[in-house]
Amino acid sequence: MLRNTRKMRVEWGDCDPAGIIFYPRYFEFFDVSTTVLIERALGMKKIEYLRAYDFAGYPLVEIRAKFRQPTRFGDDVEIESALVACGRSSFKIEHRLTLAGVLAAEGTETRVWVGRDPADPTRIKSRPIPAEVVARLTQG
Amino acid sequence: MLRNTRKMRVEWGDCDPAGIIFYPRYFEFFDVSTTVLIERALGMKKIEYLRAYDFAGYPLVEIRAKFRQPTRFGDDVEIESALVACGRSSFKIEHRLTLAGVLAAEGTETRVWVGRDPADPTRIKSRPIPAEVVARLTQG
Amino acid sequence: MLRNTRKMRVEWGDCDPAGIIFYPRYFEFFDVSTTVLIERALGMKKIEYLRAYDFAGYPLVEIRAKFRQPTRFGDDVEIESALVACGRSSFKIEHRLTLAGVLAAEGTETRVWVGRDPADPTRIKSRPIPAEVVARLTQG
Amino acid sequence: MLRNTRKMRVEWGDCDPAGIIFYPRYFEFFDVSTTVLIERALGMKKIEYLRAYDFAGYPLVEIRAKFRQPTRFGDDVEIESALVACGRSSFKIEHRLTLAGVLAAEGTETRVWVGRDPADPTRIKSRPIPAEVVARLTQG
Repeated sequence: MLRNTRKMRVEWGDCDPAGIIFYPRYFEFFDVSTTVLIERALGMKKIEYLRAYDFAGYPLVEIRAKFRQPTRFGDDVEIESALVACGRSSFKIEHRLTLAGVLAAEGTETRVWVGRDPADPTRIKSRPIPAEVVARLTQG
Repeated sequence: MLRNTRKMRVEWGDCDPAGIIFYPRYFEFFDVSTTVLIERALGMKKIEYLRAYDFAGYPLVEIRAKFRQPTRFGDDVEIESALVACGRSSFKIEHRLTLAGVLAAEGTETRVWVGRDPADPTRIKSRPIPAEVVARLTQG
Repeated sequence: MLRNTRKMRVEWGDCDPAGIIFYPRYFEFFDVSTTVLIERALGMKKIEYLRAYDFAGYPLVEIRAKFRQPTRFGDDVEIESALVACGRSSFKIEHRLTLAGVLAAEGTETRVWVGRDPADPTRIKSRPIPAEVVARLTQG
Repeated sequence: MLRNTRKMRVEWGDCDPAGIIFYPRYFEFFDVSTTVLIERALGMKKIEYLRAYDFAGYPLVEIRAKFRQPTRFGDDVEIESALVACGRSSFKIEHRLTLAGVLAAEGTETRVWVGRDPADPTRIKSRPIPAEVVARLTQG
């Protein structure tokens, strides 16, 4: 299945008065990792694949995460992300964030493929993932 | 058990190019709700109770959340938060976010009470929740 | 001219490891204040006025801000915002953030009215502010 | 004088419903660039130099920024940052953010060196920048 690893740094502005990462920031990191993973599978930037497949994104329907040890500003972490399931209109991605090889946080996102609602274009509605996208996501 | 409801608005800057809330923002909302809940239980602001009980905070160890329908900028939402478990050094809080009475998002946070690590004050370490705090949190 | 005051609280997640507000958060506060100001002038929520006047927003072209004293989590601040200039396609808003009556931060935003670029709808382009909007903004 | 250039990407979560960067995110970018600049000058990570020079940070006292053209998610931008002034307890940094060689945003931060207030360690107070730091910052 599709898999990708990227490095990033926990920044001062990601941390709270306790000096550790403010936990919603992990989900910002995971969201970027998901984008990178799909960009690599589809061979296009997100702005391009939204247009190519005429859809609005893949918002979350569920997330589970465990935080095993805190990270702090200046920590250089690595995030390994993998597609672990791909259904008709949803898919699951697992993220594992490590610091110096030790697992610090992990999360599983369930996301749904959505387009504009024809009845109200300011709203979104789930849609089947195009067969070509499924093929590319599951080929790894 | 301890319970609190507060209203807030989803803002423009909380939303992404799909026009809906960027999901890490929900956790920022939940974090504020947890603070409000504990402030009410202890009768002090967070900056005061961190000092009164000489601790560094209650970071997350686990979170689970479901997003049932998207919210958009300008949506006036209500978040009901309740303490659902309180152990020796950790506690659980459930948040239910509704829009016009309909459940839009829900999450369960597991948090751990931490203090400065005596061996390295830039680090944190879990600690028993003071008996007085447990009493106030579980009295409701 | 148009003027509005609102109260808000600096939150834990708005603050950095020094225990004070992380300065980009002030601009998130100012952005909300600008939305509230325009909502009051136009008698509609932002999602409604974007549609009513068929435009994409009013991004910043310039900002100047001074930070006179830090604010910290739990601080209940007041933000007074006023329209101070309104041109053909741009306008200026001044924000003054006070803590217990003392000026803590102030900023002046210059914003431009934009619509979708007809040549490329993923891009934006400046446009004249509708006369009706100018009238409402400058009536106060 | 001290100067540094780094590359980064504007992310989906940095952008608003108009599809362009939400302007407070530029200041998060600038803050990271300032950290990188000072880390290079001092040869230490921020967590280390805060300890080495026993201070709490260098919060903003003033900022001016101009936004010349919007950036969008997926844009690979370059930020050039330079120290342009260094006084007794404050310094100025200029940031220029370019997209494909075209200036998109620029900002000048004035920051002040602060330590814990001896009278109340939860508060901060300006302090002279250590001579050794001034020397390293101004050597370039």
